[in-house]
Amino acid sequence: MLPTIKWSDGKVIMIDQRRLPWEEVYREYTDYTGVAEAIEKMVIRGAPAIGVAAAFGVALGVLKIGKSKDVETSFERITSRLERTRPTARNLFWALERMRQAFDEAKAMGLEALGARMVEEALSIEKEDLETNLRIGSWGSRLIKNGDRVLTHCNAGELATAGYGTALGIIRAAAAQGKGNVVYADETRPFLQGARLTCWELRKDEIPVVLITDNMAGWLMAKGEISLVITGADRIARNGDTANKIGTYSVAILAHEHRIPFYVAAPTNTVDLGIKEADQIPIEERGAEEVRNIRGRCVTVPGIEVRNPAFDVTPARLITAIITEKGIVRPPYKKSLKKIVKSKTQNVR
Amino acid sequence: MLPTIKWSDGKVIMIDQRRLPWEEVYREYTDYTGVAEAIEKMVIRGAPAIGVAAAFGVALGVLKIGKSKDVETSFERITSRLERTRPTARNLFWALERMRQAFDEAKAMGLEALGARMVEEALSIEKEDLETNLRIGSWGSRLIKNGDRVLTHCNAGELATAGYGTALGIIRAAAAQGKGNVVYADETRPFLQGARLTCWELRKDEIPVVLITDNMAGWLMAKGEISLVITGADRIARNGDTANKIGTYSVAILAHEHRIPFYVAAPTNTVDLGIKEADQIPIEERGAEEVRNIRGRCVTVPGIEVRNPAFDVTPARLITAIITEKGIVRPPYKKSLKKIVKSKTQNVR
Repeated sequence: MLPTIKWSDGKVIMIDQRRLPWEEVYREYTDYTGVAEAIEKMVIRGAPAIGVAAAFGVALGVLKIGKSKDVETSFERITSRLERTRPTARNLFWALERMRQAFDEAKAMGLEALGARMVEEALSIEKEDLETNLRIGSWGSRLIKNGDRVLTHCNAGELATAGYGTALGIIRAAAAQGKGNVVYADETRPFLQGARLTCWELRKDEIPVVLITDNMAGWLMAKGEISLVITGADRIARNGDTANKIGTYSVAILAHEHRIPFYVAAPTNTVDLGIKEADQIPIEERGAEEVRNIRGRCVTVPGIEVRNPAFDVTPARLITAIITEKGIVRPPYKKSLKKIVKSKTQNVR
Repeated sequence: MLPTIKWSDGKVIMIDQRRLPWEEVYREYTDYTGVAEAIEKMVIRGAPAIGVAAAFGVALGVLKIGKSKDVETSFERITSRLERTRPTARNLFWALERMRQAFDEAKAMGLEALGARMVEEALSIEKEDLETNLRIGSWGSRLIKNGDRVLTHCNAGELATAGYGTALGIIRAAAAQGKGNVVYADETRPFLQGARLTCWELRKDEIPVVLITDNMAGWLMAKGEISLVITGADRIARNGDTANKIGTYSVAILAHEHRIPFYVAAPTNTVDLGIKEADQIPIEERGAEEVRNIRGRCVTVPGIEVRNPAFDVTPARLITAIITEKGIVRPPYKKSLKKIVKSKTQNVR
């Protein structure tokens, strides 16, 4: 497994994803504010990985609460800082809610026991995420045929999760089954997660990968070179509308136009039953410099006006199926999603 | 006018479009092989501009034919070198055909008169292209309403033509009419013509422009931020199928999905009546380094496999209208295109 994020001896260690694939630089964090900044600045990204990072951040914060401080006030300060890092990914808020439940149960136990409990809960979240992805891979690989040429957008791999990946977990599972697939990776401007991270992961695993610019996918579909699409998700509304990296919506329309299946791979904790549909999902708009610059070099007229929505929402009608750790969910999502989120056991396809 | 390409005292001068917008570097060419390389390496690009460059290249070549040489053999060598530069743009072949007609008429006149005739013909092609674009602008601006937010892909501006531009010519005409439009420029990976060239041109003309990455257009259409699309064209088949910069096809599908007009702006010499439909248009595949690198810096795993089709073909059914110097052409294109190409006068809308 790649060391996307690890808890080690009271510290959080992350690989700096802004420097990949050229340098493997590890960052150490000893307080929650450092973790919050790491999420904001995209040292770590990917909805499940952000959730794990936030949980570790809470643990770091609670471990450092001074004896003279009010524990509940301190906890609020910690979680509200982490909440304000990135608005779109559901997993961030899910992880913070889960840490809060553990906190509420343990807060009367005294600071030391409480801290230990927080660390334990964060480690559970990390461990479960990895298990979840292995299951997503197992379910999703049923949908992959020998020789399928799979387009993916952004990076929904080990680097976006505690390990193995969601969309790339499915590709890994299919590879382990010897299905001989080729992956087309959209480069995913502006942050280049596809060109930098997906290509790096798949190269390491010796899975064939072809890099394309974001504007090539439609034409390759028209030429019959792509047989299906799998992406991750940042937040899924109750009706199946799915927020994911900017460009996912366009890919979904193109897949629909060419009658190519479009699958979303995500843990059930990405589903937000509290949100009815697309319009209610908050979409982060990031800074202009990400669009104006690539690897620190300006690619346009300096100071030009830009738009930089970091995510878009793909309407449920364009999604062939959603692949979760509990099974494969198909339309109508309004019924099927609620059922699978509330289910305690694995479902069938 | 920007000096995209000029004939000056027996030399061809081009602005090096690979260095824009950061540096205004001018290249001088004194022989046709230099012009051929400039086209191949994209010092100059854009279908009409390539046509003008090829015509000047022929003129340079003919001026240097030695007295002891066979004129016809030399002419073949010159034109076949220029023909082999880039396969997709119709205007290249159109310009070479026109230079050949002038050559055939003048070849008996003696070397000096022949050379002068070649220069004269190339200058006519340049002058006519500028006039053509002014007419395209005039016709096309009828389709632009006050406040329209216009998406364009790649660069179909002054830098792609002898001046004024095709798609951007329409935007310039609308701006001159005070229509208060905003242009969204797709950055247009891998070569970044949108980010580098379209933004530079429009900034200079003080026309409001917003740069977006290629994967954002669909989402902005869904949010109602784009009201129409205009692109240029590299080759238009008899049935209206249109080759243009890679990504144009995807934009056309997105426009269709969102019921937004999708217009192509091109001179009638971009129309190739000899080609029946999309499949017969040759699509150039360029080198991998254009995708792997941006401004000389690697943006992915070194050596990763890539695809790099430089163009795609938008089927006629997705094109609302084609705006030419003789008028606005609407479906069914099979009839209307042939009619306008053969017409000697300006048509009505």
